[in-house]
Amino acid sequence: MNTPATSAAPQPLPLPPHARASLDLAARRADAAAAAFRHCSVADRCRLLELISFHIDAAREAVAASARAELNADAPVVAMEHEGVLQQLRAFAAVLRRSHWLGAAIETAPPEQRVQNIALGPVAVLGAGHACAAPVYAAAAADVIAALAAGCPVVVRSSATHPRTCELLAGAIAAAVQAAGLPEGVYGLVADHAGSAAALVTHPDIKAATYAGLRAEGMELMRRSLDRSEPVPVLLDIASSNPVFILPHALNARAEHLGQQLLKQFSPCTAHGMFKPGIVVAIEGDGYIDLRETIIDGVLAMPPVALPCAGAQHGHAQSVARLLRERNVDLLAESGAAAAGGPASEARAVFVEAEASSLLTTPTLAERHPGPSALLLRCACPEELLAVAALLGRQLVAGMQMADGDTALAARLMPQLERMARHVNVNSFTSMPIYNGATAAQAIARFLRPVFYLDVPSSLLPAALQDGNPLQLWRQVDGEMRH
Amino acid sequence: MNTPATSAAPQPLPLPPHARASLDLAARRADAAAAAFRHCSVADRCRLLELISFHIDAAREAVAASARAELNADAPVVAMEHEGVLQQLRAFAAVLRRSHWLGAAIETAPPEQRVQNIALGPVAVLGAGHACAAPVYAAAAADVIAALAAGCPVVVRSSATHPRTCELLAGAIAAAVQAAGLPEGVYGLVADHAGSAAALVTHPDIKAATYAGLRAEGMELMRRSLDRSEPVPVLLDIASSNPVFILPHALNARAEHLGQQLLKQFSPCTAHGMFKPGIVVAIEGDGYIDLRETIIDGVLAMPPVALPCAGAQHGHAQSVARLLRERNVDLLAESGAAAAGGPASEARAVFVEAEASSLLTTPTLAERHPGPSALLLRCACPEELLAVAALLGRQLVAGMQMADGDTALAARLMPQLERMARHVNVNSFTSMPIYNGATAAQAIARFLRPVFYLDVPSSLLPAALQDGNPLQLWRQVDGEMRH
Repeated sequence: MNTPATSAAPQPLPLPPHARASLDLAARRADAAAAAFRHCSVADRCRLLELISFHIDAAREAVAASARAELNADAPVVAMEHEGVLQQLRAFAAVLRRSHWLGAAIETAPPEQRVQNIALGPVAVLGAGHACAAPVYAAAAADVIAALAAGCPVVVRSSATHPRTCELLAGAIAAAVQAAGLPEGVYGLVADHAGSAAALVTHPDIKAATYAGLRAEGMELMRRSLDRSEPVPVLLDIASSNPVFILPHALNARAEHLGQQLLKQFSPCTAHGMFKPGIVVAIEGDGYIDLRETIIDGVLAMPPVALPCAGAQHGHAQSVARLLRERNVDLLAESGAAAAGGPASEARAVFVEAEASSLLTTPTLAERHPGPSALLLRCACPEELLAVAALLGRQLVAGMQMADGDTALAARLMPQLERMARHVNVNSFTSMPIYNGATAAQAIARFLRPVFYLDVPSSLLPAALQDGNPLQLWRQVDGEMRH
Repeated sequence: MNTPATSAAPQPLPLPPHARASLDLAARRADAAAAAFRHCSVADRCRLLELISFHIDAAREAVAASARAELNADAPVVAMEHEGVLQQLRAFAAVLRRSHWLGAAIETAPPEQRVQNIALGPVAVLGAGHACAAPVYAAAAADVIAALAAGCPVVVRSSATHPRTCELLAGAIAAAVQAAGLPEGVYGLVADHAGSAAALVTHPDIKAATYAGLRAEGMELMRRSLDRSEPVPVLLDIASSNPVFILPHALNARAEHLGQQLLKQFSPCTAHGMFKPGIVVAIEGDGYIDLRETIIDGVLAMPPVALPCAGAQHGHAQSVARLLRERNVDLLAESGAAAAGGPASEARAVFVEAEASSLLTTPTLAERHPGPSALLLRCACPEELLAVAALLGRQLVAGMQMADGDTALAARLMPQLERMARHVNVNSFTSMPIYNGATAAQAIARFLRPVFYLDVPSSLLPAALQDGNPLQLWRQVDGEMRH
């Protein structure tokens, strides 16, 4: 518990001088743009999101071609991501217009105080380059759009796996920034060198950072950020094992269907994503046997799975090797091996099983299982399923599959899912986060902080807080929502 | 910029075994209480706050007597703090009832998604023990009440300066917890040993920590927290220099009054607080001379100032010595020396001056000046005053004193104040944060995180999100506020 803080702090590789110079330029430009962008109107920021949408749509074919060349990405996968990005931009623009994100509130009892949220300042979006979980549209990821919506300039780390695709998207966004009449520092892209992330989280002009990916890498970035003279928020989305709990009636009613659904999670576009379910928890019985057989048959018939890069393949292989070293883990099925001389990013799908009680003796089983692999945890009874839930730590997603007869058990499981997960899904597998109004609003909020105004004359207040409500926003006045 | 993370990481002192055992017990009790407390109703949590208010009020005289014995605290100071705590409890209860803090939102477009905020889990409130800025009511500080309001059990670090007073308050809160029928783990107090804070931020049962005080100590706690296998939020309120900018017309109109106001900040109860203005920025001229003379006369006539403990006196003396070592800093006035053999916590008030441009060559001038001391920065012109503002980093409070003719300059200064500060005050000095609806809501939000529910049947949803709105809350439905 009290290991010295030094234990996992290797020195970062020094950045090549040209990379250092261009990173520094991007950060300084972002800083120079911060004040104007923070105070630009909501209408202007909505306009920026619309222009980004327009320019990304115009780059659609170039991006698809580049993704095919760099990532061997299938056209339907790229098309799906493309639509997702456009939908995201619409969702963020809609939330911006609603203005609840501003958190405008006025307390009239003396001393009169007003509050609104304002942008943190330049944000480094470090993506998941080294985790290789970066999708085609990483350079326009949700964190990028959310930070821009909040009024924060962004400096985005490119992905080593597809730098040309990232540049195409960066070009589209830069064109949108220019068309919107905003300073160019609002969006910057920097190359993905080994030391880029550390250099960004410690750069004095960067005021917040986001990272989505592996725990060790994320915590190392937090550690680096403490070398600053002034602390800044480092927002982590840590990849997790995303357990799915299959309750008995659901298992008996649709074991084969559930098996097929789980097999779909082994596909290249979801297997290495942050939302992939890596652990399946179920109670033994006939349904359990059907579920297991369905997955075994599916995995055995599966061709090798093409992951986005050799690094992803390596992470998957390491994780599988670690699982198979455990005496209490059984290998149930493995897909066909990659052809000799085939791409280094091809991986074998792997399906393993362990008794639920193994979690007690081997806590590492609860860690993330990246790539096309899944661990089936066999429980003897509902109590054991609940005990597994109680043992699991923080998750991005936790799912539950239930049928009518499962309600009582589901009600007992629910508080555990809420405790562990950010997203709780029932009877659905999602391979990516959904950006609608609710999620977009929470995503924007991460890049804002409150400012409290005491006795500030109306003319000096931000328009959102001025007397007479000139922007006609929803505001909380003495706790009541007023328009 | 890339100093190794190890540079400032001394090993924590080992906790004595009995302290380790009682800390561990408090954390485990908090964990055991977390699920029930997270899901208990808003009405029950309001009732808890009312009961805390009742029991703290009942302990009023015992607390005052103990504070007099331990801190030599004057009755009026304790009475003011007492009223502040009761007012805080009312403000938090009022915000809880309003339910906006829940962030309940429903998106009906498929896939249907709902979201609400839930409690983080057990929170360690580390206060400011070692910074000695802890007020009499530290054991019932705003962070404690905010975390309880959010539904988080708390483990509070006691203050070495007044452990008996902390125990009295802890006893009152424990009685309230019991009367509310809640598990005893909802509130725990642990002794203030050198290793207590590090042990709490790394304890597996603690899910968040707050610390208010010195930057170095706060960052060291963040560093410690990275030794955990699972990162948790460490919320820092870093003491700052809290600059006050006096604009020319205000200075000419009321220099003497402003000087008197600033002298009040040298009083024992505010001088060592987190909100004390340590830097005064003004433009030279007749008003400037009057301001300076008023403060000089006041400081020269001042008796030694009794700080809450010898540690506070030491911090003040160190800071003054560092200031006076700078060649560009002039000592303008010093109050009477402590009598030989007097209490070790007595300090001399110190008033120093420097040219604004000194900040460029001596950035440490911008650091916090704790205790009864103030640095007056002399600007040649309004542009220099704005340049000073641009050089200052994150602040808890930034103030501006203005009169009618100052509006144009004030409008240029305002964006800098918003950038640097959490609280922006105009024409007012505040010695402590004001807890009204707006501030209380933001304080509660720090201890919550969103949970997204996808396709969850209504009966399994938390009541706040169920169909038909059984709790009759304000909720956002497709972006519209509905009741």
